[in-house]
Amino acid sequence: MQHDFSIPTRGQGLVEFTREVQAWVADSGIQDGLLTLFVRHTSCSLLIQENADPEVQEDLWAFFSRLVPPSSHPSMAYLRHTYEGPDDMPAHIKAAIMPVSLSIPVRRGNLALGTWQGIYLFEHRDAPHQRQVAAHLA
Amino acid sequence: MQHDFSIPTRGQGLVEFTREVQAWVADSGIQDGLLTLFVRHTSCSLLIQENADPEVQEDLWAFFSRLVPPSSHPSMAYLRHTYEGPDDMPAHIKAAIMPVSLSIPVRRGNLALGTWQGIYLFEHRDAPHQRQVAAHLA
Amino acid sequence: MQHDFSIPTRGQGLVEFTREVQAWVADSGIQDGLLTLFVRHTSCSLLIQENADPEVQEDLWAFFSRLVPPSSHPSMAYLRHTYEGPDDMPAHIKAAIMPVSLSIPVRRGNLALGTWQGIYLFEHRDAPHQRQVAAHLA
Repeated sequence: MQHDFSIPTRGQGLVEFTREVQAWVADSGIQDGLLTLFVRHTSCSLLIQENADPEVQEDLWAFFSRLVPPSSHPSMAYLRHTYEGPDDMPAHIKAAIMPVSLSIPVRRGNLALGTWQGIYLFEHRDAPHQRQVAAHLA
Repeated sequence: MQHDFSIPTRGQGLVEFTREVQAWVADSGIQDGLLTLFVRHTSCSLLIQENADPEVQEDLWAFFSRLVPPSSHPSMAYLRHTYEGPDDMPAHIKAAIMPVSLSIPVRRGNLALGTWQGIYLFEHRDAPHQRQVAAHLA
Repeated sequence: MQHDFSIPTRGQGLVEFTREVQAWVADSGIQDGLLTLFVRHTSCSLLIQENADPEVQEDLWAFFSRLVPPSSHPSMAYLRHTYEGPDDMPAHIKAAIMPVSLSIPVRRGNLALGTWQGIYLFEHRDAPHQRQVAAHLA
């Protein structure tokens, strides 16, 4: 069974879509199986992260924006793929560091997420985007 | 077919559980398939790493503890999610960098691991924990 | 259905093998399913990355070679697993940061890749290698 989730983003940062995924899994009628998510872009990532304190999401963004500064930053002067903007090549690098696909077991019709785990799309570009996440459940 | 592995940790560092996974796969009777592991926490990771020289595990820990120092370190003063301890937000960051899920083909009843590959849980918190890893085999 | 892809590398850098994977998926006759790739080594990675501008691949290599310098570099003097060469422990570290397994939905016999996504093996060792990638399709 397959589906596409379409996730609107508002520039760099995390967007949770756990509820949408859970609803689709429940609707599928599948009791035990495996859900796989795959993001169809090279400038954003999928994350499983803590969904309790929103500051975790801000800190994640703060860390990765320091680890991989914009290509306009002096420390990144060695980058060559810069014509799509100073946020573009850093976005590809973050998309190499963080997951493009995630697999989560399904049990009795529910995702086997831990108590504090949520599913996020991490947008790495400055501009808002509509992101496609392909889902497979079997 | 599903299972939960419960992995005791002794604070930060890698714990190998390849043998437990191999035993469960063998017991399942499944000859050809796909094993997926999913860690149900946001402050530890799953890794496939070299199982020959234990210094590899120590070096991995040494690298990541420098890449993401405790939030009490001056270079991390921008972090805001600090009330669960100086090791907590760095643990979430490392859990974003390293895998939360892994999928390994199964052939003739065995994991298709390379010669030097072992399966590890990487604990990112200072305190010992009992970690749950959900497994799916089909 | 399983297969092994054997990917020749020429030392550090990315090697695309999207076409080989697509051909195998097409030959399988499977219309809807999930493809999983698993690299059977601890010193290279699998990546989904932009396949339009080759400079993206060079910039990815440039970033990660700065993030994880050779163990002969003064900043890496704390590393202990050095007897297999200055590129060996950094290769293990990069193999912890970037994916060892990837899962991609298959639709109407095609990989559900986005427009600009290609499948790459990222070699982290200096010497050329022949790398094995195990594939599972169901």
